[in-house]
Amino acid sequence: MKSYRKELWFEVPSRRGFINITPQVKECVDASGVREGIVLCNAMHITASVFINDDENGLHQDFETWLEQLAPHDPIERYRHNRTGEDNGDAHLKRTVMGREVVVAITGGALDLGPWEAIFYGEFDGCRRKRVLVKILGE
Amino acid sequence: MKSYRKELWFEVPSRRGFINITPQVKECVDASGVREGIVLCNAMHITASVFINDDENGLHQDFETWLEQLAPHDPIERYRHNRTGEDNGDAHLKRTVMGREVVVAITGGALDLGPWEAIFYGEFDGCRRKRVLVKILGE
Amino acid sequence: MKSYRKELWFEVPSRRGFINITPQVKECVDASGVREGIVLCNAMHITASVFINDDENGLHQDFETWLEQLAPHDPIERYRHNRTGEDNGDAHLKRTVMGREVVVAITGGALDLGPWEAIFYGEFDGCRRKRVLVKILGE
Repeated sequence: MKSYRKELWFEVPSRRGFINITPQVKECVDASGVREGIVLCNAMHITASVFINDDENGLHQDFETWLEQLAPHDPIERYRHNRTGEDNGDAHLKRTVMGREVVVAITGGALDLGPWEAIFYGEFDGCRRKRVLVKILGE
Repeated sequence: MKSYRKELWFEVPSRRGFINITPQVKECVDASGVREGIVLCNAMHITASVFINDDENGLHQDFETWLEQLAPHDPIERYRHNRTGEDNGDAHLKRTVMGREVVVAITGGALDLGPWEAIFYGEFDGCRRKRVLVKILGE
Repeated sequence: MKSYRKELWFEVPSRRGFINITPQVKECVDASGVREGIVLCNAMHITASVFINDDENGLHQDFETWLEQLAPHDPIERYRHNRTGEDNGDAHLKRTVMGREVVVAITGGALDLGPWEAIFYGEFDGCRRKRVLVKILGE
């Protein structure tokens, strides 16, 4: 069995944003030499997500609007978590909706994705450097 | 290490619906010959889900009602994604709530599920043929 | 390839509650002898979750409040599922938001978690004994 590990670093220059990380994950699969296996791709931070959806800007704006409805950022006093001095209570909830991780099959040395599937980093408490873990297992 | 891959195809004859796919996933596990491992089961489309819950019709109606409250289909103009000519903006959000994938353990050659766990395909933009990927790894 | 399986049992003495199970999962990783691999950790019940987030009590109260807004327990007649004699329709929905499972990388024989990541059992229909499955694969 082969294993491969890499950390991808991101610094989103605003509180929230989405980055298509499919190319970087593909590079990891290539570097791993794994032909049949899986790749686990997870946020290492609890106010960020890795998720799979469409690379379409209108949809990303829909996610932004929808998540703000489900878990508004303001007023920050609405979250008990923010009594610790944080202002990111909403980010923990938004990331929960979007998910922490994806597991993607590797077949014939390539990411085994459907035609419109793209892997995204979702940032909900940005303006600082944060990490995604890519872990690959297989043969 | 053994690996196995199969695509399951579905055509739900309405916009939304749930299909218990546990029997098909079991057949894949049998065909793989894997005794100890995992099965990854994911929608290959970004307006559909694979999830685990109860095979109880009342609950499925509750999911339908609840998802329509969280992300209503109408008016379709409420979603920027629909400006592309689509009418499935809501389906992308509903699938996000329900999840893209499940990973299930294989123990002693069988799906290692709790007593009420069943694997479902969740369709949110149906009336066309769509796929689920089953990828099995183990020994 | 090595594999390891353990069931963790919990009895939360109230309807809802969160338990940090990171120490138990670490013990499983140690017992497995796996140096490079993954651990799948999933609720075996469909009214409970395994998820990763912050071990901060205010945040846990925020989750409780938020989930009650998204899927209130009362009136129990609002859920068709409860016509079966159950009163846990809300618990199926709450668990859906929080997720069934996590997959965590194992690197160098240890859980490969970010600095604030902790693994939680989330109970939404407690006062009875329920199980989490820990399945480890690797070398």
